[in-house]
Amino acid sequence: MRFFSDNAAPVCPQVLDAIARANTLDTAYDGDRWSAQLDGVFSDLFERAVRVLWVPSGTSANCLALAALCPPYGGVVCHREAHIQNDEAGAPAFYTHGATLILGEGPGAKLTPDAIRAAVAGIRADVHQVQPHAVSITNATEYGLSYTPEEVAAIGDLCRTRGWGLHMDGARFANAVARLGCSPAELTWRSGVDILSFGATKNGGALCDAIVVFNPEIVDGLAVQLRRAGQVWSKMRFASAQLLAYVENGLWLRMAHESNAVAARIAAGLAGIPGVSLIAPVEANELFVEAEPATLDALAADGFLFYRRSPTLGRFVCRFDCADTEAEALVAALRRHAPAPAQAAQ
Amino acid sequence: MRFFSDNAAPVCPQVLDAIARANTLDTAYDGDRWSAQLDGVFSDLFERAVRVLWVPSGTSANCLALAALCPPYGGVVCHREAHIQNDEAGAPAFYTHGATLILGEGPGAKLTPDAIRAAVAGIRADVHQVQPHAVSITNATEYGLSYTPEEVAAIGDLCRTRGWGLHMDGARFANAVARLGCSPAELTWRSGVDILSFGATKNGGALCDAIVVFNPEIVDGLAVQLRRAGQVWSKMRFASAQLLAYVENGLWLRMAHESNAVAARIAAGLAGIPGVSLIAPVEANELFVEAEPATLDALAADGFLFYRRSPTLGRFVCRFDCADTEAEALVAALRRHAPAPAQAAQ
Amino acid sequence: MRFFSDNAAPVCPQVLDAIARANTLDTAYDGDRWSAQLDGVFSDLFERAVRVLWVPSGTSANCLALAALCPPYGGVVCHREAHIQNDEAGAPAFYTHGATLILGEGPGAKLTPDAIRAAVAGIRADVHQVQPHAVSITNATEYGLSYTPEEVAAIGDLCRTRGWGLHMDGARFANAVARLGCSPAELTWRSGVDILSFGATKNGGALCDAIVVFNPEIVDGLAVQLRRAGQVWSKMRFASAQLLAYVENGLWLRMAHESNAVAARIAAGLAGIPGVSLIAPVEANELFVEAEPATLDALAADGFLFYRRSPTLGRFVCRFDCADTEAEALVAALRRHAPAPAQAAQ
Amino acid sequence: MRFFSDNAAPVCPQVLDAIARANTLDTAYDGDRWSAQLDGVFSDLFERAVRVLWVPSGTSANCLALAALCPPYGGVVCHREAHIQNDEAGAPAFYTHGATLILGEGPGAKLTPDAIRAAVAGIRADVHQVQPHAVSITNATEYGLSYTPEEVAAIGDLCRTRGWGLHMDGARFANAVARLGCSPAELTWRSGVDILSFGATKNGGALCDAIVVFNPEIVDGLAVQLRRAGQVWSKMRFASAQLLAYVENGLWLRMAHESNAVAARIAAGLAGIPGVSLIAPVEANELFVEAEPATLDALAADGFLFYRRSPTLGRFVCRFDCADTEAEALVAALRRHAPAPAQAAQ
Repeated sequence: MRFFSDNAAPVCPQVLDAIARANTLDTAYDGDRWSAQLDGVFSDLFERAVRVLWVPSGTSANCLALAALCPPYGGVVCHREAHIQNDEAGAPAFYTHGATLILGEGPGAKLTPDAIRAAVAGIRADVHQVQPHAVSITNATEYGLSYTPEEVAAIGDLCRTRGWGLHMDGARFANAVARLGCSPAELTWRSGVDILSFGATKNGGALCDAIVVFNPEIVDGLAVQLRRAGQVWSKMRFASAQLLAYVENGLWLRMAHESNAVAARIAAGLAGIPGVSLIAPVEANELFVEAEPATLDALAADGFLFYRRSPTLGRFVCRFDCADTEAEALVAALRRHAPAPAQAAQ
Repeated sequence: MRFFSDNAAPVCPQVLDAIARANTLDTAYDGDRWSAQLDGVFSDLFERAVRVLWVPSGTSANCLALAALCPPYGGVVCHREAHIQNDEAGAPAFYTHGATLILGEGPGAKLTPDAIRAAVAGIRADVHQVQPHAVSITNATEYGLSYTPEEVAAIGDLCRTRGWGLHMDGARFANAVARLGCSPAELTWRSGVDILSFGATKNGGALCDAIVVFNPEIVDGLAVQLRRAGQVWSKMRFASAQLLAYVENGLWLRMAHESNAVAARIAAGLAGIPGVSLIAPVEANELFVEAEPATLDALAADGFLFYRRSPTLGRFVCRFDCADTEAEALVAALRRHAPAPAQAAQ
Repeated sequence: MRFFSDNAAPVCPQVLDAIARANTLDTAYDGDRWSAQLDGVFSDLFERAVRVLWVPSGTSANCLALAALCPPYGGVVCHREAHIQNDEAGAPAFYTHGATLILGEGPGAKLTPDAIRAAVAGIRADVHQVQPHAVSITNATEYGLSYTPEEVAAIGDLCRTRGWGLHMDGARFANAVARLGCSPAELTWRSGVDILSFGATKNGGALCDAIVVFNPEIVDGLAVQLRRAGQVWSKMRFASAQLLAYVENGLWLRMAHESNAVAARIAAGLAGIPGVSLIAPVEANELFVEAEPATLDALAADGFLFYRRSPTLGRFVCRFDCADTEAEALVAALRRHAPAPAQAAQ
Repeated sequence: MRFFSDNAAPVCPQVLDAIARANTLDTAYDGDRWSAQLDGVFSDLFERAVRVLWVPSGTSANCLALAALCPPYGGVVCHREAHIQNDEAGAPAFYTHGATLILGEGPGAKLTPDAIRAAVAGIRADVHQVQPHAVSITNATEYGLSYTPEEVAAIGDLCRTRGWGLHMDGARFANAVARLGCSPAELTWRSGVDILSFGATKNGGALCDAIVVFNPEIVDGLAVQLRRAGQVWSKMRFASAQLLAYVENGLWLRMAHESNAVAARIAAGLAGIPGVSLIAPVEANELFVEAEPATLDALAADGFLFYRRSPTLGRFVCRFDCADTEAEALVAALRRHAPAPAQAAQ
């Protein structure tokens, strides 16, 4: 009954096996046979030539990507609730050498062209104020919404018009693709995305995420920057093998379907429970549940693990290996602890 | 017959098993049961309270350590042949925000108090020149020498006198300890070391090295900096489990003894081969072999993999799993390809 | 009739004369007789031993000061309307190597202990979020309010309790001191300020502002950082002479009294003009005048220069050499262009 | 009898007058009538459209220029004796966010294409070593040599071939141009220079040097970076007026001719004095005099000020306002204190 984080999940057997199978005598850094396959496998997946880099965390992926799109003196528009703004310890400024995050607004941590325009509207075009150079969106968002290809493309168009780069934080990219049923290409470069943080860890991976680079102009500097950041493993094959296993035969999407499905089942179960509501539609594997403090307290007392964002708001994240019984138990517990209808109506 | 790098070796079975055994439902980041043991296990190993941080590479370890000892405007004395100077892509300047490496000289990539004093002798104590704030030594060195505890302590004394910090790059720390037969404590904090890059990858590890912090004053900032560098894995237990397995029951030292022994056997075998010589004593698992170009060419043609530093200099690194037959084959091949005595005497 | 900026004013004759009088053969950098007097003169002015550094701009002063108080991975609490946040081109991140500004709220660009506590209330004490290390306040504020010594001391107490540093951006420090009638000491170190950006340029100076350091622990690194930022003039005496002349015999306060007095006269004149109001009390040399767009348009058409922050908000800054006739002309013009009472009442 | 530094000289009257004449009511930052003339005046001087930025010091000029040519992860080739390497407190790493200086060799602090090729010859073209992106040369050099246009062009050709930028540190650019009798254009952009640090302070200026940008692609980012570094003066007209006066009617070259002529006179006077020699030809306004310690001691005891680089090496810098009598006195004193011929012959 762990809904605290998808990072609490185990690694899927295929990824773990891949690590074990890579355990042969080979060569240092990325000269091995697994690393050599990465660009090809991801180019197939994304239906165009891409370059793939590996990183130990989503923060590395995001911030190396931002550094590739924005000079030290520039700004990146992101949502006020973006992970890069709130949960990466200032890493964007470290990797970009001081670039500024320019914060936009919008429900469910989702940006729109209008929200982006509003965020930059007050910036004078002079040397005294930081000018925007890029936009970063998170798909699925920090509140579990998924941008559709059309929504991404609208932002992509704005970026192209302004000469800005477009980054997508895809810590839960698999969940968005699984939800939307579109192709990875449609959701990224066909909609104007220059560079993607391609998450694996939260969705059954182990110790390795990836950066997928669509814009060939930025990739060489990025690869050097990756090395300069100390993130080229000496035994790269153990990382590359993880990524290959993760995307082989659609495994990554099957796992995302699983966690999405559990979240949808819980969302359906919550409907109609008095005094319990979702603050955003469930479009990936996360639920943000608003309820009275006593209700959430009782859940915690029952042993459910979840992130308590405020006394009345709990975040519940569904793992790829979440059992139906866990979902059912959560719904049952919420129903059990919800206030009596009369009380809830107050 | 791979002597190119110890990174080419497989992961030892114990570390690989530890990854598999960590594959349970637990919690995100470093809240898990494996990560919780790190400080204790390493405190036992080093015979005092230490803090341990994990990193994906030796470069990360080194450069986070330097940033903990040196302000952005300061300098770090290291050997001209140091890995941080030559092979880390400028990472020291990235992590320290621009600190300067001040280069010292000495045979076998080894610094001495005199060499350090010489390196800083010309620095005027004014604001126009970068002032030293720390020293970084590599043990075993980049040419395979091992600093003894006495040699480290002499440098430690100098550092204490000048108010500098002392970092040890221990990418091959295990090989030095195994060679010297001293305790890890003697070779580090008892000799004045503030912080140690504790390598595992080159000695049977997989995707994780460590930083061991002896100086409690610098550890809090360092832990934040680690997160800001995107190097806190979301599923830390898979990294922590590697480190625990690596040091359990002396495994790390046993593996280092193995690779050292192979190197010693090859060194013994080379003695007396005409036209073939070692440029430095073999005090760890590396050999730097000087020979005529034709000799080294012939070795390569035979399929031996090694790093050709120059036409007449080859680096041979022994893996923890190096077989006796590999050592014997190398010696035999060198003897076979060495010039005839008359020719060599020219 | 220039109310656009106090930077539009000439240099006061005493400062200009000082530059000319410094024009003798002396020595390079800060070894000259003028620079040698700086610490002593400012120590007298602030009634304790201080160290004074010179800078070409208020931005340099502010950002070097922030870098002295906050590590690259830390945060500085400032007001959302602070100059360091809005008008310094991201310089805080450049000088601090990436520290984060944490934004507080409050009328008139003024922080209070409660506002500061509110700004940091949501920050979890973990490694994923940037932790505050310092507070920066602007006195007089960006909206022309002056913090009293008591108000500063309340913030100073909070900082001491939390272990944070306290910086004061004193681009218009002279105006605040002149307004309050307190001593420079009371408004700074006696109230807990560690470091002060001491403005001169806006108040009759030429090309040089100063940093006054009360906390001796941070001054050595700061002096090195100043040199590293390329801001040690080769002929320092021409800068030091400006600062000495500026504070000699209370000149700096006399000039601030002048500009404050003009602002007060205009404020008094505005009272009772229908449809024209001040959005903040006038406590220094700036007025923020709210009026109908047509009124402000008409002023501009009359040749008054001022900064139009929005269609209905104009900023009017009084220079130290502002003539009474300029003030009278402004009031008369506002009265002339104000809407008829009936219209204004709508 | 001050030969310690050209920074010890006064400001020439024309520059001082220009500051005084700029003292009118105008506008803030660089919107004034003097700043508006800068690009035009320097474009005339350099015979093509250039952009000019102002800085408080040569260090700022150099390091902003390097940052415009080299990414944070790149390297800049310069001479081991370059000012940027030895006397700028690590400012290159601050402004470039960590770029590396790659050191070349050559007599008189002068680089050649061969010296540059030798400096980079050992750099492997992989991600583990810092790759060169630019070259920086100093003209006149740190040992008082002047690069001819042909010598600069040879380096410029190499840079173009390799895709590197070329920076010229012209702290004593005036002295080089005056010596060579060439045009400023010939010595810079016509020979492949992308960006020039144009010194004024050492040659009769006051508080302001300049950056002249020939490559239009790098200028916009550089102007923003200048502001971000806090080096846009609020009353820019007092800086711009200095630069305009400095170059008006060839004043800058006349002053450089003066100081060069004094240096040449001293050099001629030294010829034939036993035991006294120049370590480099005198091609600008500096002399590097090798003599016995007793000789240099005696000079110092006589009250001559000079920079003692070692017991047997003194640097003597001639100011633009150096009197003939000073030159004669120096030669006479050297002759007086030189060892008797027999002694010198030992």
